[in-house]
Amino acid sequence: MAPAPLITLLTDFGTQDAYVGIMKGVIAQICPQARVIDLTHDLSPQDLLAARFNLLTAYPYFPAGTIHVAVVDPGVGTARRGVVIQTEEGMLVGPDNGIFSGILATRPGIAGVSLTQTDYWRTGRPSTTFHGRDIFAPVAAHLAKGVPISALGDPIELKSLTVLEIPAVVQEGDRVRGSVQHCDRFGNLITNLTPEHLPSEPWQAQLGEHVLPSAQTYGDVLPGQPLALIGSHGWLEISVNGGSAEQRFQARVGMPIWVQPRG
Amino acid sequence: MAPAPLITLLTDFGTQDAYVGIMKGVIAQICPQARVIDLTHDLSPQDLLAARFNLLTAYPYFPAGTIHVAVVDPGVGTARRGVVIQTEEGMLVGPDNGIFSGILATRPGIAGVSLTQTDYWRTGRPSTTFHGRDIFAPVAAHLAKGVPISALGDPIELKSLTVLEIPAVVQEGDRVRGSVQHCDRFGNLITNLTPEHLPSEPWQAQLGEHVLPSAQTYGDVLPGQPLALIGSHGWLEISVNGGSAEQRFQARVGMPIWVQPRG
Amino acid sequence: MAPAPLITLLTDFGTQDAYVGIMKGVIAQICPQARVIDLTHDLSPQDLLAARFNLLTAYPYFPAGTIHVAVVDPGVGTARRGVVIQTEEGMLVGPDNGIFSGILATRPGIAGVSLTQTDYWRTGRPSTTFHGRDIFAPVAAHLAKGVPISALGDPIELKSLTVLEIPAVVQEGDRVRGSVQHCDRFGNLITNLTPEHLPSEPWQAQLGEHVLPSAQTYGDVLPGQPLALIGSHGWLEISVNGGSAEQRFQARVGMPIWVQPRG
Repeated sequence: MAPAPLITLLTDFGTQDAYVGIMKGVIAQICPQARVIDLTHDLSPQDLLAARFNLLTAYPYFPAGTIHVAVVDPGVGTARRGVVIQTEEGMLVGPDNGIFSGILATRPGIAGVSLTQTDYWRTGRPSTTFHGRDIFAPVAAHLAKGVPISALGDPIELKSLTVLEIPAVVQEGDRVRGSVQHCDRFGNLITNLTPEHLPSEPWQAQLGEHVLPSAQTYGDVLPGQPLALIGSHGWLEISVNGGSAEQRFQARVGMPIWVQPRG
Repeated sequence: MAPAPLITLLTDFGTQDAYVGIMKGVIAQICPQARVIDLTHDLSPQDLLAARFNLLTAYPYFPAGTIHVAVVDPGVGTARRGVVIQTEEGMLVGPDNGIFSGILATRPGIAGVSLTQTDYWRTGRPSTTFHGRDIFAPVAAHLAKGVPISALGDPIELKSLTVLEIPAVVQEGDRVRGSVQHCDRFGNLITNLTPEHLPSEPWQAQLGEHVLPSAQTYGDVLPGQPLALIGSHGWLEISVNGGSAEQRFQARVGMPIWVQPRG
Repeated sequence: MAPAPLITLLTDFGTQDAYVGIMKGVIAQICPQARVIDLTHDLSPQDLLAARFNLLTAYPYFPAGTIHVAVVDPGVGTARRGVVIQTEEGMLVGPDNGIFSGILATRPGIAGVSLTQTDYWRTGRPSTTFHGRDIFAPVAAHLAKGVPISALGDPIELKSLTVLEIPAVVQEGDRVRGSVQHCDRFGNLITNLTPEHLPSEPWQAQLGEHVLPSAQTYGDVLPGQPLALIGSHGWLEISVNGGSAEQRFQARVGMPIWVQPRG
């Protein structure tokens, strides 16, 4: 027997209200056998960059056929489209505001539709403020039941999808400049620099006026000391052993960071 | 094959301790096939009004037969009763302190019992401080296994159940006065005023000295501007586009709010 | 049909990033039928004492065969071992840093292995910073699929496992000195004193200069008043009815506490 279909949820709804539980109830009404996994609901309200990052980094670790629902949706109730995008690995369901553009930058979609077929919504007259409950969760549950993407609405050009840009990596003489993509709960600063961007050893990183030694793991430096290493997501990270680089360096998403050969 | 029975959990236990996980372990010991959905566990300790609100607004979105367990229980270990209430749509399990009275105000129960039959508890000698683990989770798991409500204890009169009152809606000349029922994580103020309470268009809302324009969705006003709209729960909400009405207006649950024809 | 295997997760990863969701995705890739229950992910970063306490108190409430994965891992990427320990009731999977030593103090293990067999990891070249994703989640999923513990690595002596010590209980004349093991989200102070340590009634507890009356439940004292009672975990707890003993007494884990006959 095939395992039950898997749906992931990512929102900025927080966990102090029942909004996420309500989406799961709606899914259970339509497709009781679907399994649901939470990616996160504790993003700052309307933080699309954090949503993009978390989707991008979680995406490779789910089984083929997984349906990813993402609802960070400052434009809810306006003319912005709701979409489903089919990829080689699964389905993406959410608003067309760039939330999936991290995934799609390296794993192009196969097909996409604009969610116009109200038969697959919870109601033909959805609320103007909670499309997670009224449109996206029901659509995901119907996909989990086997409804084909083509039934859900009108086909769209994938190149018409909104893209959420992050600063490009730039070569500057013998230095490479990237930027902080994400600050995680440990205060690690995850950049957009990959191993391919690094000069040959020995190298060092620079954040503002701070110069950081390269390392393999946190324990390579003394407790409280900062370091630069290739982190678990495959990008250069700035960390403090047993501490928070975000606090230490007053860092934030978008801040520039350089790597260069060691003096 | 029938889908596995569904149990929802709502508590004020927070998520930094394993209390909620322990309740799920107890359920899994008794009814391994039950599926569990969290409504919320991040209510402020002993915030019965928030519990009442979240149960009320989540309740319609779950499949028939769902068992809702709610444990916000300042009187745990005292003489307050534990109860199960059968409704047309499912079962409610928790303390008799008014936590379900929002649901029951519009969807009266069919039958109720006081939880006195210790055979369906985790142990005949429960702790005095954690009935969620020792009584309510086991009772819900036995209901999920098919134990009839009548086996769980003595029948009670439904009208004997504790009611948690909220301020009534009052007509005052050409104005209608309601109150804030709930502040959600986005800082939206959800009132107890329904579309039926509104005067014909154009109308406006008033909160303290602030007059708020009516709108259809957040995007109808400029970023940072306040508005009044019928929200996803079906009640009048006061919001700030891209911001928090709770912070802007120093609002709190119980605050009065008026709607009236526009000047 | 046997119920699906049960895996619990306890980490200090928080819920603002997708780290926990990623571990669940990895488990679903390997063993789709496994059910996963969260114990907690909101421990303070690297708080091994809180991890030890939560595992210890949750452990008895899960079905036989449950696989408990715990990842609070300040030494990730260094030479510390990853281990699986088989107990009479289930399996423990995590770093060898004492995280399971609360459980093992009273329920000795049956067998243990050091995780050296890379075939059961997500990849033969795991990251140096996220063994939860690359080693512990995959190993747990393989255990859930039926892989025997002996296949996962080299056997180890159970007495070689790291132990996380907490202060011993000491008799001092007619007083007994224990200590605070844990502060929970309600501000209850859970000590390491059991009913066997208590003098016969009447007795009282002392925390710093504060003397606290014994009680059976919170409601035995007036709102805002402190009390000492045997809590739901089976240990002496210091609480404030409707308040936080942690805040009232500026308490912290490790603080000494005495019980003695009442004046």
